Amino acid sequence: MNFASDNVYGVHPKILASLSEANAATSPSYGGDSFTARAEERLKEVFGCDLRAFLVTTGTAANGLSLSAITPGYGAIICNAEAHISVDECNSPEMFTGGAKIMGLQGTGGKITPAQVEKTLKGFIRGEHDPKPKGVSLTNATELGTVYSPAEVTAFSRLIRPRGMKLHMDGARFANAVAGLGVTPAELTWKAGVDVLSFGATKNGAMMLEAVIFFDLSLAEDFAYRRMRSGQLISKSRYLGAQMLAYLEGGLWLENARRANALAQKLAAGLTRTGTVRIPNPVEANEVFAVMPRSLYDRLLASGAMFYDWMPDSLGGAIGDHEIFTRFVLSFATPEDEVERFVQLVAAG
Amino acid sequence: MNFASDNVYGVHPKILASLSEANAATSPSYGGDSFTARAEERLKEVFGCDLRAFLVTTGTAANGLSLSAITPGYGAIICNAEAHISVDECNSPEMFTGGAKIMGLQGTGGKITPAQVEKTLKGFIRGEHDPKPKGVSLTNATELGTVYSPAEVTAFSRLIRPRGMKLHMDGARFANAVAGLGVTPAELTWKAGVDVLSFGATKNGAMMLEAVIFFDLSLAEDFAYRRMRSGQLISKSRYLGAQMLAYLEGGLWLENARRANALAQKLAAGLTRTGTVRIPNPVEANEVFAVMPRSLYDRLLASGAMFYDWMPDSLGGAIGDHEIFTRFVLSFATPEDEVERFVQLVAAG
Amino acid sequence: MNFASDNVYGVHPKILASLSEANAATSPSYGGDSFTARAEERLKEVFGCDLRAFLVTTGTAANGLSLSAITPGYGAIICNAEAHISVDECNSPEMFTGGAKIMGLQGTGGKITPAQVEKTLKGFIRGEHDPKPKGVSLTNATELGTVYSPAEVTAFSRLIRPRGMKLHMDGARFANAVAGLGVTPAELTWKAGVDVLSFGATKNGAMMLEAVIFFDLSLAEDFAYRRMRSGQLISKSRYLGAQMLAYLEGGLWLENARRANALAQKLAAGLTRTGTVRIPNPVEANEVFAVMPRSLYDRLLASGAMFYDWMPDSLGGAIGDHEIFTRFVLSFATPEDEVERFVQLVAAG
Amino acid sequence: MNFASDNVYGVHPKILASLSEANAATSPSYGGDSFTARAEERLKEVFGCDLRAFLVTTGTAANGLSLSAITPGYGAIICNAEAHISVDECNSPEMFTGGAKIMGLQGTGGKITPAQVEKTLKGFIRGEHDPKPKGVSLTNATELGTVYSPAEVTAFSRLIRPRGMKLHMDGARFANAVAGLGVTPAELTWKAGVDVLSFGATKNGAMMLEAVIFFDLSLAEDFAYRRMRSGQLISKSRYLGAQMLAYLEGGLWLENARRANALAQKLAAGLTRTGTVRIPNPVEANEVFAVMPRSLYDRLLASGAMFYDWMPDSLGGAIGDHEIFTRFVLSFATPEDEVERFVQLVAAG
Repeated sequence: MNFASDNVYGVHPKILASLSEANAATSPSYGGDSFTARAEERLKEVFGCDLRAFLVTTGTAANGLSLSAITPGYGAIICNAEAHISVDECNSPEMFTGGAKIMGLQGTGGKITPAQVEKTLKGFIRGEHDPKPKGVSLTNATELGTVYSPAEVTAFSRLIRPRGMKLHMDGARFANAVAGLGVTPAELTWKAGVDVLSFGATKNGAMMLEAVIFFDLSLAEDFAYRRMRSGQLISKSRYLGAQMLAYLEGGLWLENARRANALAQKLAAGLTRTGTVRIPNPVEANEVFAVMPRSLYDRLLASGAMFYDWMPDSLGGAIGDHEIFTRFVLSFATPEDEVERFVQLVAAG
Repeated sequence: MNFASDNVYGVHPKILASLSEANAATSPSYGGDSFTARAEERLKEVFGCDLRAFLVTTGTAANGLSLSAITPGYGAIICNAEAHISVDECNSPEMFTGGAKIMGLQGTGGKITPAQVEKTLKGFIRGEHDPKPKGVSLTNATELGTVYSPAEVTAFSRLIRPRGMKLHMDGARFANAVAGLGVTPAELTWKAGVDVLSFGATKNGAMMLEAVIFFDLSLAEDFAYRRMRSGQLISKSRYLGAQMLAYLEGGLWLENARRANALAQKLAAGLTRTGTVRIPNPVEANEVFAVMPRSLYDRLLASGAMFYDWMPDSLGGAIGDHEIFTRFVLSFATPEDEVERFVQLVAAG
Repeated sequence: MNFASDNVYGVHPKILASLSEANAATSPSYGGDSFTARAEERLKEVFGCDLRAFLVTTGTAANGLSLSAITPGYGAIICNAEAHISVDECNSPEMFTGGAKIMGLQGTGGKITPAQVEKTLKGFIRGEHDPKPKGVSLTNATELGTVYSPAEVTAFSRLIRPRGMKLHMDGARFANAVAGLGVTPAELTWKAGVDVLSFGATKNGAMMLEAVIFFDLSLAEDFAYRRMRSGQLISKSRYLGAQMLAYLEGGLWLENARRANALAQKLAAGLTRTGTVRIPNPVEANEVFAVMPRSLYDRLLASGAMFYDWMPDSLGGAIGDHEIFTRFVLSFATPEDEVERFVQLVAAG
Repeated sequence: MNFASDNVYGVHPKILASLSEANAATSPSYGGDSFTARAEERLKEVFGCDLRAFLVTTGTAANGLSLSAITPGYGAIICNAEAHISVDECNSPEMFTGGAKIMGLQGTGGKITPAQVEKTLKGFIRGEHDPKPKGVSLTNATELGTVYSPAEVTAFSRLIRPRGMKLHMDGARFANAVAGLGVTPAELTWKAGVDVLSFGATKNGAMMLEAVIFFDLSLAEDFAYRRMRSGQLISKSRYLGAQMLAYLEGGLWLENARRANALAQKLAAGLTRTGTVRIPNPVEANEVFAVMPRSLYDRLLASGAMFYDWMPDSLGGAIGDHEIFTRFVLSFATPEDEVERFVQLVAAG
């Protein structure tokens, strides 16, 4: 029973097969291959628009590179205090942007609001003594398993675009957000004002694959240089393109996400039924965050179940001394019966 | 007939199979998996010493990260003017090191000498107006298909170690150097004073895999932070570990290199026999650099053969107006009959 | 009546005279002059210890350079949320350190506590996914006009030194802290565990002069390179040395600070007597922070008095809707009668 | 007899007096003062155009900041191999630009040619594997005491502007170039296509003062942030403005430069007359570079004369084993009789 992360599961068989298929013959390297070109074309179809897509190997690189296209080192990026770019990437955004400030606002349920951003922007009154606000980054689905709807995303865009700021979406779990919301990829991105998207695939069935997708094409100028300079231009690039082709083929990416999301709903419902566990935030993607007694937590870990405790900062104090905040991540490959067995284990307490 | 690069060929079947085998079950992520741990252990056996190994996805990242461990931003790294770190990585070493100077010296046949380095170091006489010399980087096998012997490497180490400088080896084609020289990996690295090695695998049969290997263990302190910060810590890390295990298993890495090197010898001998092509440098690894008439060059390209022309800077002017300098790279997977056919094509002129 | 900042006042006449005296004859440049050498010797006497001092022109540079000596780009520096390095320097610490994280903790009265730092350090549990904590920076006197005593400083040092972290003091108003506490410079720095000090002079009577002073001499290694690289090595360096000599001569620096501090006490006492203004924090240096009715604020500004309103974050909500938080800075050169007139102006309401 | 550098001399009395005059009363800080505003206005008059000027304290900072406005970290700046930005600033341009490549071309007499730049640009054929060429930097007067004429500067601009590249002039000795050429500041800068100028004052009589002057106003956007972030925004900014006002007042800057240049002519003529010293490059500003016998060099140094030997790289081998290449810098304040005495000393050999 492993709910530690979606990245503890392997690669979807179709994506693995695609790597083997790509292995025949020679192929141009450094992004000049036909797999990469077709992957970009397929992404245009998926998003229903013109765009520029750059394949990379990690979400941290995708985020750092995305942000480097929207802020110089003297700029600031506003995000949720628990955003991956703020607390999980070892100053990587600072490295990629040349030192920009990542300003984390304390949100609720993993989400910040346009009103918070507006208030923050009003604090930038001292010219060059402050950094220059250059962008907002929204994680969708969020680090707490919630989602921003197209309308919510649009509200950020309406606020910041007139100020010359850009909107980034960290979509490490973008598929889960799209599946959870039942919207189109277009509705959740460029139609809602997203300028650049970190389009995740690794957590959702790929081996190592993310794409930086520019809807604001002007931001893509020189981006090939940025990717190369950061050591993210893969020589045998066909193996990134091949992963992406399989990931998109026949809607595999959404199919995987829907399965993971459904398991999250099942787990959440099961845990709630036990009566010993609280689920403070809505479960809108493939993660379940639960408050449980420490005694239960200890018993579950002792039984071999794998999951993490989580920083309760976002709960606003609504947690008791003998409670613990925990995270469960469901994957395209999580066995359904493990969810059932886990709920039974909780209920057996 | 594709001699453009060793990276236009695919992945060795055994390495591809290893990826599939690694796909079962769940596995800890971010380098905590058993594949990665075993890969490091195997590297210790291969090199016959204690070491620290960090797996990454590209040679550019391996080099930049290696250099970041030996120089701060106010430092200088001395290398050959044609070194990959100097002219092929879009300022990536500068990004990873925070702005260090990459000083390329004009070498011969892809190689610099300790005497050149010593003379250069004598020029650092103005204290902090110059950067501080912090390291030397040798590419082995070199960008021109030659190799540094253990004795040659040792001479650099003897020169710089007493000055507190570190020795880096860019081993994107390290296997070809070891195979070409008929030495042990230990003899060519730590026994010769190498402090950190970019151990390449991608060009020699892996999909995307390089290792930063520290023989000076003190340099490895905090290196996990450096790798994470640069977006090079892969979440599903088992797929790097699995590649490395297969790459080393049964000496596959050297077997591949020996095959490629042998094809290079065959090509060089064949081209020389034609009488229309000069090979100015010794062929010591898996690359052949040839001076040919432009008319021949045009005919070969027109026939569909794929290879690059090369900057003739290292030839010291020994090239005629109607000649062109060209590069042929042989791979573990290059069909032997293509070498034969290509020689016939040249001879048919 | 100008209480906007201590930097709106000019240069002390003795320091100005020192510049003229230094103007005769030729002098070695780039720090090789005798003024600079003597300034370093005098600082050793003032601090009663061996040390290394590097003169620069701004406090922002002094801070950024100091921090660059104690943290790499993957590190973190812990400070008060209102610290100058956190909110007043336009990402300068990030530039100088190559991207380190400046973690501001919400303090009280401009001060953080060792317990806060300890709790923060306990959150660094995820290895390289977090940055590596490398230092604590205390501003003394603080941005809110309070001071850390030697005992308080020592408590930070005792906490972090065993963890390999370094202690920086931003002493833009160091003289005011020393004067306010009635301690020796040694007691407030190296005896209390400070490793590196930004020793301010500009605000307290110099023209443009700060010193980076290393008590941990190992941190000074290579620092000359850092200073040069940042464009802070002045060619006609004698004019920094001459400022420092005059600043220290006969205790001018402490004399200036004592005068400014005394004016702050006078202002605080006068404002308190009026009964319409609250002073929430102790006045321990040369700044007075006051909560006043907005109507009074408007009247004072209209009368031509110059001072700033301030972010009330540190007040913990203890401010009414019709109130405003304001800052008054007293300088070595503030006319005493302006303090008196200002108090009368407030009282006249 | 000190010919070591123009920065070994002090501050012109009028500039020193201006600092004293600026000392009265309070003044807004951080560039908001009237001295700074008037200095910018005066620079507009001097250059006869609209411009944006930013005052800083060192030439290294002026250069680094200028370059940061024209190249990102993945860019390249082309200059002469002996340019200050290439060999005298300890990787400072790399720090300010976030890692751009400074490509030094071996010139003649301190100068490169448009043809050299054009040939270099033709080598950028590999897309993002190379950095992106973003600018050319010309030092004027050059590091070897020669000058680029307006026509020569224009030729660079005509070459690079159509390619989207920008032209920077390192004018640490700009006054000497203008004076030497007998042209207007406008003719040598914006009329010749210069986009940004490091306008030096320190070497020519100021205390610590340079200006970054943008003729391409679009480059000045956000530049205030860049200056602040680098620790170059002086709090008591009036003392930079006051220096600049005095430097420009009544043409002092050109008067100083003319005097220094005339002394250089006098020294060159005198040395040539002795018959024992060769002057390989034209003397066009305030520096004289001379090839002399080592025996003479030793005798001169022993007599107490101060000057530097210089790297003979630019001489193209035209120097004998027993000869040495030397530099003599003349300043606005160099006593004329010292020039005469030095020539006599040489002649007495």
